[in-house]
Amino acid sequence: MTTPTRTGDEQARIDLVVEKHAQARDLLKHFDLDCWLTFTRESSDLLLPFVTGGDSLVGTAALMVFAGGPSVAIVADYDRGQVDGVFDEVHAYALDWRDPFRDVLSSRSPRQLAINVSRDDHGIDGLTHGLWLLLRDTIEPLGMADRLVSAEPVAERVRALKTPAEVERIRRACDITVRIFDDLTGMLRPGLTETDVHGILVERMAAYEVGPAWDAAYCPSVSTSRGVGGHNAPGLLAIEAGDALRVDFGVRHEGYCSDLQRTWYFPSAADPSPPAAIARPFDAVRDGILLAAELLAPGQTGVEVDTPVRSLLAERGFAFTHALGHQLGRRCHDGGMLLGPDNARYRERSHGRVEAGMVFTLEPCVGPIGLEEDILVTDAGVEFLVPPQRELIIIS
Amino acid sequence: MTTPTRTGDEQARIDLVVEKHAQARDLLKHFDLDCWLTFTRESSDLLLPFVTGGDSLVGTAALMVFAGGPSVAIVADYDRGQVDGVFDEVHAYALDWRDPFRDVLSSRSPRQLAINVSRDDHGIDGLTHGLWLLLRDTIEPLGMADRLVSAEPVAERVRALKTPAEVERIRRACDITVRIFDDLTGMLRPGLTETDVHGILVERMAAYEVGPAWDAAYCPSVSTSRGVGGHNAPGLLAIEAGDALRVDFGVRHEGYCSDLQRTWYFPSAADPSPPAAIARPFDAVRDGILLAAELLAPGQTGVEVDTPVRSLLAERGFAFTHALGHQLGRRCHDGGMLLGPDNARYRERSHGRVEAGMVFTLEPCVGPIGLEEDILVTDAGVEFLVPPQRELIIIS
Repeated sequence: MTTPTRTGDEQARIDLVVEKHAQARDLLKHFDLDCWLTFTRESSDLLLPFVTGGDSLVGTAALMVFAGGPSVAIVADYDRGQVDGVFDEVHAYALDWRDPFRDVLSSRSPRQLAINVSRDDHGIDGLTHGLWLLLRDTIEPLGMADRLVSAEPVAERVRALKTPAEVERIRRACDITVRIFDDLTGMLRPGLTETDVHGILVERMAAYEVGPAWDAAYCPSVSTSRGVGGHNAPGLLAIEAGDALRVDFGVRHEGYCSDLQRTWYFPSAADPSPPAAIARPFDAVRDGILLAAELLAPGQTGVEVDTPVRSLLAERGFAFTHALGHQLGRRCHDGGMLLGPDNARYRERSHGRVEAGMVFTLEPCVGPIGLEEDILVTDAGVEFLVPPQRELIIIS
Repeated sequence: MTTPTRTGDEQARIDLVVEKHAQARDLLKHFDLDCWLTFTRESSDLLLPFVTGGDSLVGTAALMVFAGGPSVAIVADYDRGQVDGVFDEVHAYALDWRDPFRDVLSSRSPRQLAINVSRDDHGIDGLTHGLWLLLRDTIEPLGMADRLVSAEPVAERVRALKTPAEVERIRRACDITVRIFDDLTGMLRPGLTETDVHGILVERMAAYEVGPAWDAAYCPSVSTSRGVGGHNAPGLLAIEAGDALRVDFGVRHEGYCSDLQRTWYFPSAADPSPPAAIARPFDAVRDGILLAAELLAPGQTGVEVDTPVRSLLAERGFAFTHALGHQLGRRCHDGGMLLGPDNARYRERSHGRVEAGMVFTLEPCVGPIGLEEDILVTDAGVEFLVPPQRELIIIS
């Protein structure tokens, strides 16, 4: 909610999305698809930021990126500013989107209209069913109803394969998160409640002018080792000597998210070392993350990375039921393939393959221990976006 | 982003949505529908706040309100806290939503499954096409694929017909907006740029701990009478004596929105009265709003309210191309029927009928004049949620 310096921000938005359009064109060619169509109204499609660079478009709009030839945006006249400079051709209508849309379809006659639909990947399933009906009714008289196909191979990669400018934005979100964690470390002391810690992090977000990476009610998620784990609202438990504190937290900055977890320990005067009930799972989770980072490489499936990490944890006597990691980008749960087990909850997505340019979380967390890192996959290996936590942070 | 006092907030959320469920049950009976099904994942359905009271649900979920008998939520185990206390039965699954969903369908055998699909109303078109495919594939083996119908008559009224608790939330958002306008009035002076005014309003939102009612880049929208009107990013024009200043602004507070416009005038020392180019459209817009408030009543169609106001403005020599007003609630553009003309842009929605409990904006704005009021329709007439602006606010 900072006042934007219009010109710079506008140009950065346009530069970023022009790169994404170029990426989409290459992907369309690669998958032998003719036209990627985003059909939306009232900001209904979650792919909008990749198509216009913004997330707001009020009127009914047809946004078309072609494998060859100029891109076309058909938008309401008052939405024109959202697409100027991004699309090669802009048709701004006063009353009805149908006429210019039919004209473009007739003149370009794309072999397919690849739309944002996916059974398995929420991150690219942006077309509503009502708009699908409206679209089908509109193109049926043109004899084009059978040209509707899923944009899945293109759209999932446009979301997943980060350009350098996107990686830099995620990295900045991670950097700010680490600075907030460092600030918190300086303020932590026994006696603070989970709600107090939550309040400190909310205040720090305001100070750094960032928003939460997911639902504000659950970001940050704060729990002491005597509380419950995971995505919980913060409770009234006060930190005592002998407790660990687990925080799951991410910020959204320039449209991109971080998603990190850190764990602190509050030793008692009598015994400065963490007990085995905290030290052992900490070491297991940390070693699981380091193993995952070794295994993660283009071409691996999600299951191939998840299984050995799950085994390592099991050998140490621990189990986690969720996926090892998910993709991260404009959304905290960015969708697409993930690093998960071969079970009914994750099957479809765990069998996808890692590609260079993807950003993943690694979070084989158990019980009182929350460690979560964000890493970029490259052809040369993986890169932690911020240094991983290797030891408990001791508050003495 | 304030730290919630969990217990009170949680209870208020639950109370509000329990009322909305009761409303939905009555509507289901009225329209002879058996079951309203919201099928969602990763917070994909914009009706979620009316069904769970929150806007976050990570796992694939089937949320069912029945005309008779207990309501049922099928959610991932980690989402359980979002539906406990709201639904009569909660089935929390570890791995797969399909088994409990099929079991509920088999035992309850609803005559219809009314889903969130609409060609014309974006506010209730929450089901994605990918989820529709998944749903159809799941119920086809049960012989229930032909039971899918649109929830339109129920869902549009659940969104549109505000309960007293919802009206109070909108009223509080309007009150805060007026306080921010009053604060602004105390700070306005010639020499400030549109960007400065934007910055003041953004700072005031932070001070009152509210967010913008629509896309932060366009809320507030600030323009001097020498700038361009409507939803524009703020520019660098400085206010001069003789200018009007138009601000379109709303806040989101407790999940509900305001959407108001106000116009200020900066007289010159030589001539304290606004020129006809400002005074005449001001009077026309104000009179148009007052006429709309007289006409607006349950049973009227949108066109029947819009047409006389458009004529009044035309008689005074002014024209606006957008709708006279839209519904307001959890979204700034809440969807549903609107007060609009009978043209290709608005036709489907302008022919709907006004019902008691709806909240509308009234905004027949022209050129330099932004006046927009928020009003509640009741069986006894209409109620302005905050006092309407009747004269230019003079900054001398």
